[in-house]
Amino acid sequence: MGEHRVALVGAGRIGRLHAGAASKVERLSVVAVADPALDAAEELAAAVGCDALGDWRELLGRDDVDALLLCSPSGAHAEQIRAAAEAGKHVFCEKPIASDLAAADEAVEAATSAGVVLQIGYNRRFDRSLAALRDAVASGGVGDPVLVRITARDPEPPSRTYLSHTPGLFVDTTSHDLDLVRYLTGREIVEVSATAASLVSADARELGHADTAVTTVVLDTGALGVIDNCWCSSYGYDQRFEVHGTRSTAEVGNAARDTVRSADAAGLHSSPPPHFFVERYGPTFTAELEAFAGALDGGPTAVSGHDGRQALAAALAAAVSAKERRPVRLDPP
Amino acid sequence: MGEHRVALVGAGRIGRLHAGAASKVERLSVVAVADPALDAAEELAAAVGCDALGDWRELLGRDDVDALLLCSPSGAHAEQIRAAAEAGKHVFCEKPIASDLAAADEAVEAATSAGVVLQIGYNRRFDRSLAALRDAVASGGVGDPVLVRITARDPEPPSRTYLSHTPGLFVDTTSHDLDLVRYLTGREIVEVSATAASLVSADARELGHADTAVTTVVLDTGALGVIDNCWCSSYGYDQRFEVHGTRSTAEVGNAARDTVRSADAAGLHSSPPPHFFVERYGPTFTAELEAFAGALDGGPTAVSGHDGRQALAAALAAAVSAKERRPVRLDPP
Amino acid sequence: MGEHRVALVGAGRIGRLHAGAASKVERLSVVAVADPALDAAEELAAAVGCDALGDWRELLGRDDVDALLLCSPSGAHAEQIRAAAEAGKHVFCEKPIASDLAAADEAVEAATSAGVVLQIGYNRRFDRSLAALRDAVASGGVGDPVLVRITARDPEPPSRTYLSHTPGLFVDTTSHDLDLVRYLTGREIVEVSATAASLVSADARELGHADTAVTTVVLDTGALGVIDNCWCSSYGYDQRFEVHGTRSTAEVGNAARDTVRSADAAGLHSSPPPHFFVERYGPTFTAELEAFAGALDGGPTAVSGHDGRQALAAALAAAVSAKERRPVRLDPP
Amino acid sequence: MGEHRVALVGAGRIGRLHAGAASKVERLSVVAVADPALDAAEELAAAVGCDALGDWRELLGRDDVDALLLCSPSGAHAEQIRAAAEAGKHVFCEKPIASDLAAADEAVEAATSAGVVLQIGYNRRFDRSLAALRDAVASGGVGDPVLVRITARDPEPPSRTYLSHTPGLFVDTTSHDLDLVRYLTGREIVEVSATAASLVSADARELGHADTAVTTVVLDTGALGVIDNCWCSSYGYDQRFEVHGTRSTAEVGNAARDTVRSADAAGLHSSPPPHFFVERYGPTFTAELEAFAGALDGGPTAVSGHDGRQALAAALAAAVSAKERRPVRLDPP
Repeated sequence: MGEHRVALVGAGRIGRLHAGAASKVERLSVVAVADPALDAAEELAAAVGCDALGDWRELLGRDDVDALLLCSPSGAHAEQIRAAAEAGKHVFCEKPIASDLAAADEAVEAATSAGVVLQIGYNRRFDRSLAALRDAVASGGVGDPVLVRITARDPEPPSRTYLSHTPGLFVDTTSHDLDLVRYLTGREIVEVSATAASLVSADARELGHADTAVTTVVLDTGALGVIDNCWCSSYGYDQRFEVHGTRSTAEVGNAARDTVRSADAAGLHSSPPPHFFVERYGPTFTAELEAFAGALDGGPTAVSGHDGRQALAAALAAAVSAKERRPVRLDPP
Repeated sequence: MGEHRVALVGAGRIGRLHAGAASKVERLSVVAVADPALDAAEELAAAVGCDALGDWRELLGRDDVDALLLCSPSGAHAEQIRAAAEAGKHVFCEKPIASDLAAADEAVEAATSAGVVLQIGYNRRFDRSLAALRDAVASGGVGDPVLVRITARDPEPPSRTYLSHTPGLFVDTTSHDLDLVRYLTGREIVEVSATAASLVSADARELGHADTAVTTVVLDTGALGVIDNCWCSSYGYDQRFEVHGTRSTAEVGNAARDTVRSADAAGLHSSPPPHFFVERYGPTFTAELEAFAGALDGGPTAVSGHDGRQALAAALAAAVSAKERRPVRLDPP
Repeated sequence: MGEHRVALVGAGRIGRLHAGAASKVERLSVVAVADPALDAAEELAAAVGCDALGDWRELLGRDDVDALLLCSPSGAHAEQIRAAAEAGKHVFCEKPIASDLAAADEAVEAATSAGVVLQIGYNRRFDRSLAALRDAVASGGVGDPVLVRITARDPEPPSRTYLSHTPGLFVDTTSHDLDLVRYLTGREIVEVSATAASLVSADARELGHADTAVTTVVLDTGALGVIDNCWCSSYGYDQRFEVHGTRSTAEVGNAARDTVRSADAAGLHSSPPPHFFVERYGPTFTAELEAFAGALDGGPTAVSGHDGRQALAAALAAAVSAKERRPVRLDPP
Repeated sequence: MGEHRVALVGAGRIGRLHAGAASKVERLSVVAVADPALDAAEELAAAVGCDALGDWRELLGRDDVDALLLCSPSGAHAEQIRAAAEAGKHVFCEKPIASDLAAADEAVEAATSAGVVLQIGYNRRFDRSLAALRDAVASGGVGDPVLVRITARDPEPPSRTYLSHTPGLFVDTTSHDLDLVRYLTGREIVEVSATAASLVSADARELGHADTAVTTVVLDTGALGVIDNCWCSSYGYDQRFEVHGTRSTAEVGNAARDTVRSADAAGLHSSPPPHFFVERYGPTFTAELEAFAGALDGGPTAVSGHDGRQALAAALAAAVSAKERRPVRLDPP
């Protein structure tokens, strides 16, 4: 039994993913799963070996629950953070922290006032290669960062069902990359310009969603960042990151599925990157919960409520920019 | 003696480069060099073995001159094209075609009316790898292009002298990349958004020039393009091109200076790309003059006045966008 | 409790490694650990949660032991296989199968007569990339294999203690590669020529061991194979495999520790391969025990006693060839 | 007119190649071409703009000939070197220097006695990447070389005509690699073991030639070298070189035909190496004649008669080893 007892809120795909990750973290025990779809809660609870509930609010009064892992729909995050904080429960919250900035600010304020840990699920910060890239920047080996360049493409568009309730490409996909621009450089984003298009998914087009976008940001140092996203990538899940600096340029490329190569008259051939984000980022889901356990022990919070608020602010600004065709300044938080 | 007799207008660095390239094209003969700096004209003419003149206008009446190679300052290009066309001389003009769109349109019109060849010096189209990339797109192997991604970085900023009269990063550097977006996709650019910064050159900053920029374009298909430029690159001359399509993604990378690699406890090490654009694009300067000779023979013009006009329009739009912080639509020519 | 109950013979480094691997195989349970060093046996048994014994022979009469996992010194393998077979116990035996060919043949014969499973620990066959390479050959995509080329280098020489009782480079290291030549091509080795040297380890030189060798083999098809081994590799654990065929050439390269790269004036830099064989081949130790469980279920034996015998024969032939400076023919088994 | 006047002996393929290379060396003038096939001599002489002769001996008495470029059949080389030396003519001789060692020694002795320059045509030493690899070794950056590993494969077997008079794979192909082992390490070869097979060419098999071979050498330091050769390579002309040392490992890889890459569901694809040796090594043919001109000026001889003799000795030893199935020691010259 781990020393920190956590309850999962949400028993959908991402809830199951976090349940699996939590099972690998020795210091955490999952003691309950709450989901209004009680069948789903019970099924996951049975697999985990813990209680199932229909109403997450019942967790707030339980003495055997130290922290909530929020895997609920985005729209519920901010209220759940506030309620948990008021009940003295720590919170690990899947991104995004909220649906709008006002709610995000209230959630951060509630956690701060209550003195509880609030960690946001920007898991990619825990990728070993990205951490090494951040270290290369932080150590000064890159010099002054001048340009951050990110390509993040999904193999295929989300399902029509998913598209019918998604907050859209910028909050869903780009917010990860905006968070990584901040993480890799240690700087704040002050302006966002985005151009978006619906090119690869008939469903996205019909439902009014962009599936392809270029997002340019200005950092508080004046340095630039540029992110290209697309929900179609024939060769698999594409995740590339480059920090171009005055002394050197450092990057993280895609890992291949295996190291097999071949050569013939047509040229040289090697294996593509993985198709699925879990293959690429699998270990990060465990690592972020290890970090959460460390924060529950009194250590620093690896991805703070402020980080979650800033990534959301930038993603919402990108959506406004793409719609209104103008750069959007970010107010200081 | 080549069958087509050309005169160089401009005996500076780019004039000397074109003189060298022309000497490798059998069907071309350089019969005169004109430069108001007569010393420079004479020095180059002596190396070539031809006449030297101070005033380019004297070339217009000479029967032994079939075509002009304009390597003069950008501001003079449009007038020289018009004058040459009226005199029945064909023109190869270094980019940009003009300093403003009105002048560009007049120059194109003059050449069309006179029925002379007008080729613009977007030499990179003649790079073997870029031509292969274009072919990969044109053949349908890439599917529908969704995103074009270009990185083009110079090893170091231009000299202060150069900076004091340059039209700036967008016309100088980005216009090559804007031309290549059109070349690689075969589509027109309809909107340009740019964000620029002065980060790597104190001279550029003092003289009001950007040295780093991200330029996003929308094509007439709705597809997007993004170009990042920087006048500082510790590892050499960086030229990377990617066309992301619905069926596959094709790209052109940097070539290394040599194929030496080493491995030690710190990792694997290989040689950087060339430092100088002539090492990267050397053969293209000869190839574009070979193509010019072909056009003088009656063949198609590889890079037309229209192409030059469109690249200029997009580059000027980028400069406006960066300054006025808004996307700029391009009018149909 | 897994359905197959196994006992570990040997509680040293490799015994601990197999205990860890077995714990990940659901269908296997480790019920006992035997080692004449009873302290070591007890320590490992405590970690596993099973019995400890000093004398492996006591395992032969136990009804709760279905199979032995031999992680004992090489010299004991053959006798242990014979005894286990006679007692009706299945055997997974670390390579090499024996110290000499006569003993190997007797061990194989004993297992065959008794009808027990005998699997040899050539774990690299279970590497995902090597299996894909084998499949590329088996499918005919490579055409007729003409040349197999293997580089296998250890980061540093074994300790002096290890060197004082090792059968030497050919049996220790090269036998893996000789096994893989057979595995990748599906053919038998008929001749071996080796040249060896003591170049990188003063200990090896003093104790009369080679630390560097080139081994050339002829297959029964007439195709050639060449293996270079060295017990020193500044950049980490080096494992490269190439099958050159008449239609194409397929290879397996080294995987880097991470996907970070950097570029500066000195060139491009990327991360080295892992330093330790467990990082490279870790999953194979679990996979070979999964396969063993499958064989206990009545499935085929992935690496048979014959395979172990042939790899040993080739390794011993290489040692003779290096010493006597002549090619050595392998008799048909 | 270059300051050194040379006469070509041999107007076949390699003679034409050297005539082209010589035309790019300013300090050399080709003044005559001799070939018993007078038609061929005349055709090449017409292209070069010089005299044609049927009998090379007539060149010996001509005052306007400073040096001979021997592009004749191998069997004639030694006699021609001796005769040229006695006539006071310098010699550039295509490899091999002779057909047997006794003739090679006499040729070297004749050149030494006469005080004429004798350079052998091991052109690959002049490859920029290989020279950089040699420098990496010579500078100590590699530490002590432990193992040299060369792969050299031709796209396809020679024609039956060529095969009917070739000295065979070892002298034709492997001798280049044996020379490079000496060049890269700066050490002498003391023992050679080779294994050969006829696998890819029915013509080679019928005419008794090997088309595939592995050659292992021992250097005077005790370090090892291994060369694999094959006259079949589906992906083009394959030339890879690796020096594995105690401090690092340095290598020269293949250059791709262009820098185009693509990615799709099947993986990543890039262009193969060139198909033809002239594409890979073209500049070396000019560079070796530049070096020859430097030697005629009194500079050092880049590839000496001794170098030619040693490469031949090693290649002949490899042929003996492959035939007699034993390692062959090389006598000190």
